[in-house]
Parts: sequence; C-alpha cells; structure tokens
Amino acid sequence: KTIALLPGDGIGPEITAPTVELLNKLGDFTFEEHLFGGISIDAHGTALTDEVTAACQRADAVLLAAVGGPKWDTTDPTKPRPEQGLLGLRKALGLYANLRPVRPVPALYDASPLKREIIDGTNLLVVRELTGGLYFGDRGRRGDTAWDTMIYSVAEIERIVRTAFEAARSRVTSVDKANVLESSRLWREVVKRVHAEEFPNIELEHVLVDNAAMQLVSNPRHFEIIVTENMFGDILSDEAAMLTGSIGLLPSASLGGDGPGLFEPVHGSAPDIAGKGIANPLAMFLSAALLLRHGFAMETEAAAVESAVDRALADGLRTADLGGAATTAEASQAVLNYL
Amino acid sequence: KTIALLPGDGIGPEITAPTVELLNKLGDFTFEEHLFGGISIDAHGTALTDEVTAACQRADAVLLAAVGGPKWDTTDPTKPRPEQGLLGLRKALGLYANLRPVRPVPALYDASPLKREIIDGTNLLVVRELTGGLYFGDRGRRGDTAWDTMIYSVAEIERIVRTAFEAARSRVTSVDKANVLESSRLWREVVKRVHAEEFPNIELEHVLVDNAAMQLVSNPRHFEIIVTENMFGDILSDEAAMLTGSIGLLPSASLGGDGPGLFEPVHGSAPDIAGKGIANPLAMFLSAALLLRHGFAMETEAAAVESAVDRALADGLRTADLGGAATTAEASQAVLNYL
Ligand SMILES: CC(C)[C@H](C(=O)O)[C@@H](O)C(=O)O
Ligand SMILES: CC(C)[C@H](C(=O)O)[C@@H](O)C(=O)O
Repeated sequence: KTIALLPGDGIGPEITAPTVELLNKLGDFTFEEHLFGGISIDAHGTALTDEVTAACQRADAVLLAAVGGPKWDTTDPTKPRPEQGLLGLRKALGLYANLRPVRPVPALYDASPLKREIIDGTNLLVVRELTGGLYFGDRGRRGDTAWDTMIYSVAEIERIVRTAFEAARSRVTSVDKANVLESSRLWREVVKRVHAEEFPNIELEHVLVDNAAMQLVSNPRHFEIIVTENMFGDILSDEAAMLTGSIGLLPSASLGGDGPGLFEPVHGSAPDIAGKGIANPLAMFLSAALLLRHGFAMETEAAAVESAVDRALADGLRTADLGGAATTAEASQAVLNYL
Repeated sequence: KTIALLPGDGIGPEITAPTVELLNKLGDFTFEEHLFGGISIDAHGTALTDEVTAACQRADAVLLAAVGGPKWDTTDPTKPRPEQGLLGLRKALGLYANLRPVRPVPALYDASPLKREIIDGTNLLVVRELTGGLYFGDRGRRGDTAWDTMIYSVAEIERIVRTAFEAARSRVTSVDKANVLESSRLWREVVKRVHAEEFPNIELEHVLVDNAAMQLVSNPRHFEIIVTENMFGDILSDEAAMLTGSIGLLPSASLGGDGPGLFEPVHGSAPDIAGKGIANPLAMFLSAALLLRHGFAMETEAAAVESAVDRALADGLRTADLGGAATTAEASQAVLNYL
C-alpha cells in the first residue's frame, strides 16, 4: 500500500518523520514523499504541481502534516499561496467530506479553557463539506468591489449529509443560516428530505450557525454530529477544537467518493517553533490512526495507536503546547513504547 | 425626543414595558410603539410595513426588543419571515455598524462556561459590518443549485473600519478569510490603508476567522476591538456573547451615518418562556443605556443605568436564565431602586 507523504512547511517535517516510524511498525507501507505548500512554491512556483497531484491520485492514501508560514503570506492575488495547494488537492481528489472528531482527553481537562463540568463527556464529530460553497464558487473584482459566491447543488448537499447520517448513532445537528441565505434554505430542504427518506430513525435538528457557535461553548456535550457547509465548518470546527485546549491532539480525515483520502492534523505549521524539535507529534499520530481506519480498514491498528496516545498522556506526557517540556522525540518514543 | 418602540415577538413586550418605565425616569421622551416582526406578519402580511419604516426614519432612536418564533419559521422563500423586518430596517436606516460590547460581570463569572482565569478581565467590543456581504448580496436558485453572494465595496469597508479605529484605545483586530476569499483580500487591503493613513498610532492585527473563533475561547482577553464583515460578525459576536454565560445581559447598538440608531438586546425572543413574566429585562435596560449614550449623548444617564444593573447583580439579583428565580417585575424593580 502506497502512502503519499506531504510533510509541507514549518513543523511539518519534524512530525512526519516519527509518524513514518510509527506506521512502519504497524504495516507494510510504501512511502512516497512530495513537496507541497510553501516549500513547493519555493521550488516550483506553485503550491501543488501536476506531478504531485497525479502521485496523490495514484496513492492509496495521503498523509499531510501542515502548510503555510509568514514567508508566503500575501494578499496579492497574482502570487502563489500555500493554501492553494490544499484547496487544489481537496478538489483534485474530490475530498468533499472533512471529518473532525473532538473528544477531550480526561487527563487534559485542565488544559481546556472550559470548566470541567462543561467539557466532561464531550464527544462530537464535525462533518464539514469541503469542496463547495464560498471556497470554490465564482469570485472576482469589479470596479471597487470584490465578491465571492456561496453556491451549493442538491447533489453536493446530499452526499455530505449522507456521510453525517451514516456516522451517527442517534442524533445529527445540521447547521445553516436558513433565515438569511438561499443556499442554506436549499441545504435545509435537502437535509430534511434525505433524513425522511433514508435515515428516519436518527434524530435530526437544525441549528442556525450563530446559535451553534454559542452552544458549542455553553453546552458542547449536546452535540453528537454537526454537519455543515464549508465556511461554517471551517469556523465551527476550529472553535470546537479549541474547547479541548489541546489542538495539538486533534486529527482530521478528508474523504471522497472513491480514491484516496487525505489525513492531517487540525493544527497548522507553527512557524514560530519550527526546527526546535519541540512540536507535538500526537495529532499527526492520530491522523495516521484515521488513515489506518478510514483509508485501509485497519481498525485494530488504528485503535492501538489511539490507545497508545491515551496511555502516554495519562502517564503525564506533555509537550510545550500542553504546558510541559517533552520534546518531539520524547513524545514519539513515549507513544511507540506503548505500541 | 421620539423613540420608536418595537416590542416585537415572544418575550419582547414583557421586557419593553419596564424599559419604558426606566427611560421615563431619566428624561422626557415620546414613545411611538409599532408592530414589527412576526406580530406584524400576522397583522399585515409583512414583518416591516412602509409606515413603520417611515416612522423609524422620522424617530430620533429605535428601541427593539426581539423578533421571531416557531410560528413564523419557514424555508419557503415566498413566505414572509420576521428576520426580513430586521434586515429591512437595517438597510432602510443605513445601520452599517453593529456594536456589541462583551464585558463579563465579575458577580456572574460562575455562570460562564469558561474558567475564571480565562474570562477574568475580558472587555471587548465586536464591530460587525451590518448592511453588506452575504446578507444583502445577490442570491437565488438556478436549476438544482442555490447561491448567495458575499460582496463588499471599498467604501463599505472604509466606513466600518473607521468606526472600529475610532472606538479603539490601543488595538484593533481585523478578522477575515484572506487566504481564501477575494472579498477578504479587498477587506484586508482597505483596513491596512485606512490604518496607515488615518490611525497609525493604533495597533492593527489581522486574524483569520477560524483562528479568531479559537482565540475567542482560549484567550478572550487578547481582544480589544474585533472588526469584521457581516456573516463572520454574526457568528463571532454570538460566540463572544456566550463567553460570559449570561447572554441575557448583553446589549447592542446599530448605528448609521446620520439618522436614528437602533438598540436591541443580543438575545432572541425566547418563545419558550414568553408570557410567563420571568424573562430577564437587563439586556434591554442596557440597550436603553446604549440608546442614551449613542443616540442622545446622555452619558450620565447611560452610566447610571449601567451602574444600577451592576449593583443589582452584585446584590444577588438572578433571573431564571442566570440560575435564579427573580421575575421580570422583581428584576426591574431591583434596578429601578438604584436609579
Ligand atoms: C488553510 C485554509 C485554506 C484551510 C481552510 O480554510 O479550509 C484551513 O483553515 C483548514 O481548515 O483546513
Ligand atoms: C435574525 C438574524 C437575521 C440576525 C442576523 O443574522 O443578523 C441575528 O442573528 C442577529 O445577529 O441580529
């Protein structure tokens, strides 16, 4: 099985190396490493070359660390930006479903900005639509105005909504802004229909995006599955991630119809600590676990990684982002020891 | 001085009555009450009639309680909805600047979902653009798609950004999604220019909306002024409101160039408790304080209302939403006693 490896920028390479080591312990994988993001801009003038796109399409799964950094920040639309690589890859691989599990680790409740009684028992999954909406709609400038288009088709809504219902045990919360947006009204209609026709036994609720942003803070336990469009999902999933106080622990999976999925940590490239050997590799390990589970149906191995991470944390493992002093190497070893 | 009074739906009328009483203690005002929202739909088939629009335009200030309720919830674009009244009034009065102060009351830290050490000292103002973006851009359906347009002109960005800088003591945080959206790239360019040309002594930072959603939870004290476009402002200001755990206490002001401003609580019409006499009137009182300050330059009276509310809370006043049992009448009396 071939894994396309995209270490990217900043701390990316530092957390990729131990993840390869971890995966090699669990199976027989071929790794193909590629430039992606800022480092690819420096080498090729674009964040994602056609060769890398093709290589990712051929692979059985894609493992990405992080892209971006101040070096490539620009608002000049004619300049290449690292994010274009991410967006291009999502589109090229048809990765319409971004899954972000948020499950605070009891050992780390103290790291959460939320009170223990609020965070305790939270276990939610954000299902974010990833290839539609404002991210890929028509945009441009005319005269002294600039615009972007939030556009959705029925088929785009149907498939992401199915992903959400299929992942649900008992309840799905669909988030929209149907009191203002036409695309949200279509969204709500489609969600209702798919629910009635295909998943009548799952409870469905509709929550406005502003209200969801409130409830995520005041009562995160309320949510099991949140399904929403691309931009709302970007905002709400990052808000949800922060509830745990340990964004360095959160993985994500981006899945398409068929073809390889893409697995990456929720955190960014952290340019401020890059090269120091102190980056937290755990979100990357947990992303590898999602790769094993969703990409290769290796549930046993996936669960083994997750439990090794849990045990290392319970033992007191803390990298700098969690208020500790463990290095990347020490954190990696602590997890590998439990495998 | 004439105040157009829009009690609206749900708990609206219950919290409007004591607010009129409060204002009558502080000045000589003429109140003109109008139907608005769901109740106007029932009477006239539209949430905002031309007569009410004209009356609000003629008034010196508009005081609104809340609109909406399950009775008028619909995704049918041909049916009238209460929110259309709100959006119509914002547009008709040119209310482009929505100001939402978020200042947790120490007496209520226990009500916050955030830990005391996170919330302590938070004192921020969200300056939300209110008449542009996705809310008023072109929208529609074609075939099996639906779309909305996020569009901004340079002039629209300039004026809201000036409002933000003028309100700032030392720092403004501009929130956008410039790594994806063209309208955000224009936003960022204009913010930079206005800052350099007119407010070089105020610190300016640019934060991506997903990151802002995180930092609001992890480090709300960081923010002094957040300025952002309409949809992002809707989401972030509600998230920020919830940090205090007492959304029943938060007022807002919507201001235009000249002409009357509109003042309203952040909370909604709470149809579940309407008619029971237990709604918390404090956000409405504090909205009246903003009306006195921004609408009539009556700073002394505005501050008197705010300090009366603070003292009543310090005395232990708690309505149901704050975990207590005080009725609307008791809460109102407690505040009036301090005036
Ligand atoms: C980098 C950016 C384009 C991206 C997004 O907005 O999708 C990121 O925030 C994410 O959530 O993966
Ligand atoms: C009711 C709705 C249209 C409105 C908005 O989204 O602006 C509300 O959420 C608000 O923030 O005032």
